[in-house]
Amino acid sequence: MTAHHFDTPYRGGLVGNEHHFALTVYFEDTDTAQIVYYANYLKFLDRARTDMLECVGIDHAAIHRAGNGAYAVAHVDIRYLRSARVGDHLLVVSKLEQIRAASLIIHQRVMRGAELLADAHVTAAFLTPEGRPQRQPREWMEKYRALIGQEA
Amino acid sequence: MTAHHFDTPYRGGLVGNEHHFALTVYFEDTDTAQIVYYANYLKFLDRARTDMLECVGIDHAAIHRAGNGAYAVAHVDIRYLRSARVGDHLLVVSKLEQIRAASLIIHQRVMRGAELLADAHVTAAFLTPEGRPQRQPREWMEKYRALIGQEA
Amino acid sequence: MTAHHFDTPYRGGLVGNEHHFALTVYFEDTDTAQIVYYANYLKFLDRARTDMLECVGIDHAAIHRAGNGAYAVAHVDIRYLRSARVGDHLLVVSKLEQIRAASLIIHQRVMRGAELLADAHVTAAFLTPEGRPQRQPREWMEKYRALIGQEA
Amino acid sequence: MTAHHFDTPYRGGLVGNEHHFALTVYFEDTDTAQIVYYANYLKFLDRARTDMLECVGIDHAAIHRAGNGAYAVAHVDIRYLRSARVGDHLLVVSKLEQIRAASLIIHQRVMRGAELLADAHVTAAFLTPEGRPQRQPREWMEKYRALIGQEA
Repeated sequence: MTAHHFDTPYRGGLVGNEHHFALTVYFEDTDTAQIVYYANYLKFLDRARTDMLECVGIDHAAIHRAGNGAYAVAHVDIRYLRSARVGDHLLVVSKLEQIRAASLIIHQRVMRGAELLADAHVTAAFLTPEGRPQRQPREWMEKYRALIGQEA
Repeated sequence: MTAHHFDTPYRGGLVGNEHHFALTVYFEDTDTAQIVYYANYLKFLDRARTDMLECVGIDHAAIHRAGNGAYAVAHVDIRYLRSARVGDHLLVVSKLEQIRAASLIIHQRVMRGAELLADAHVTAAFLTPEGRPQRQPREWMEKYRALIGQEA
Repeated sequence: MTAHHFDTPYRGGLVGNEHHFALTVYFEDTDTAQIVYYANYLKFLDRARTDMLECVGIDHAAIHRAGNGAYAVAHVDIRYLRSARVGDHLLVVSKLEQIRAASLIIHQRVMRGAELLADAHVTAAFLTPEGRPQRQPREWMEKYRALIGQEA
Repeated sequence: MTAHHFDTPYRGGLVGNEHHFALTVYFEDTDTAQIVYYANYLKFLDRARTDMLECVGIDHAAIHRAGNGAYAVAHVDIRYLRSARVGDHLLVVSKLEQIRAASLIIHQRVMRGAELLADAHVTAAFLTPEGRPQRQPREWMEKYRALIGQEA
């Protein structure tokens, strides 16, 4: 079987110190008000953060599988400014806002073209398998500092 | 067929100025970290708010079906303090925090017994079918003021 | 704090050899076609099966946590006959159809009053933690046989 | 702002008479058994069918928005053969199996490389806004016949 470019799942990418992640709104994302259901934006943000980690060389799923802890969201502050509809093409733009010893704060915006639909600040805490905060590995910290230092 | 008490869906209830809504964590709510997925807390909060409105005599679904607008969430600020697991019995405790002309702020806590798992402040804006803010009906405002005035 | 009856989550119940599980349709369950999204019926069916197991004295979540394997769905055959809308009160009626050594077949119907909305046959296979079929414990088999023998 | 290739959402594609749709498994898709939750496969299948329609030139979302009816799933028969885990790259391979006046039957397989994870037959019925079966437009029928006639 020939391999086609569409046989590989979508990957986002870095643009300077910002991460871009594009997606299409499907029926599963919407609700009876005919807009994207408010909880589902948090799924979009999570997909984008996962991809951003991979883009800087961190495989979060593998780390979790290895039993070395995982990121867990500790805080979300999200404003919903405009609604999205089925079929819309959205772009999640993510930016590392703050690097702490055991957590990251990420600024994430959901855009439709030039329109800002949702504006969020998400704190991801790095936890042991028992759920206690732990320091992020030194090499990750370096990757984060390198990322934050990039100009767009 | 005899009607059984379990043939009627669960309803929460008011305790003074607080609304209580109990639920069980099912497989659908969890993720591979073996805890409730962060976005799914927003579903729990939404179920509780819907039930709270019904408890004070407001049928949000009917209003929306009638084309007279609907509440849409404009802002969520949520802290995740402890994680919940499959089979857990949770209680969402909701309290009207602030009543504005075109929106409500609700304080919502997700509890497991005496443990606070998540602590949220949610702003629900009342919108026209076109998505513009509109004043909440006068009789609803009276119901909200009566609720907020109750002592626990 | 006084304990209120609504501080305890909903539980379904047995009516002869049938299990009844009631639920309300929330915004999260619907899609932009203003009906319950087809995948979400599988969540309703899962909640009902989990509750049915508990009703016959099997705590599936505890077994899974103990590392002794779990049921996994091996086959679903579901017909969607009528649609459900936000605010609807539904009843999932489940009936053990067939008991095999390593699996169960359950007939599950989603009702709105006397109307049949969805009609499903679900095969749940009991798997080892490695994902291989394993015999269901003898005491469970007895419970299942006792249940199937009940008259409605 | 420069446009990057990753600013455009993923699109699947046709390979002869088959449609390919690739995706990554995210945390949102998994459950506490650390595999993809059974209901979520139906979301993957839906995304693939939506994309397949677009690939043959049918914009389902636009038709629905215009009030001319929509496809609704009438029947799903799905076998779950192997489980998928977070981070897995999956491919949904869809093939039109049967074209009827008011419905389509689509054979959909979820693959991980050469492994078959889930095997489904889905009947999508074309309904009026009132929910009654209606004939699919003649030009769509021609597109479907052209697709089914392609060799892989």
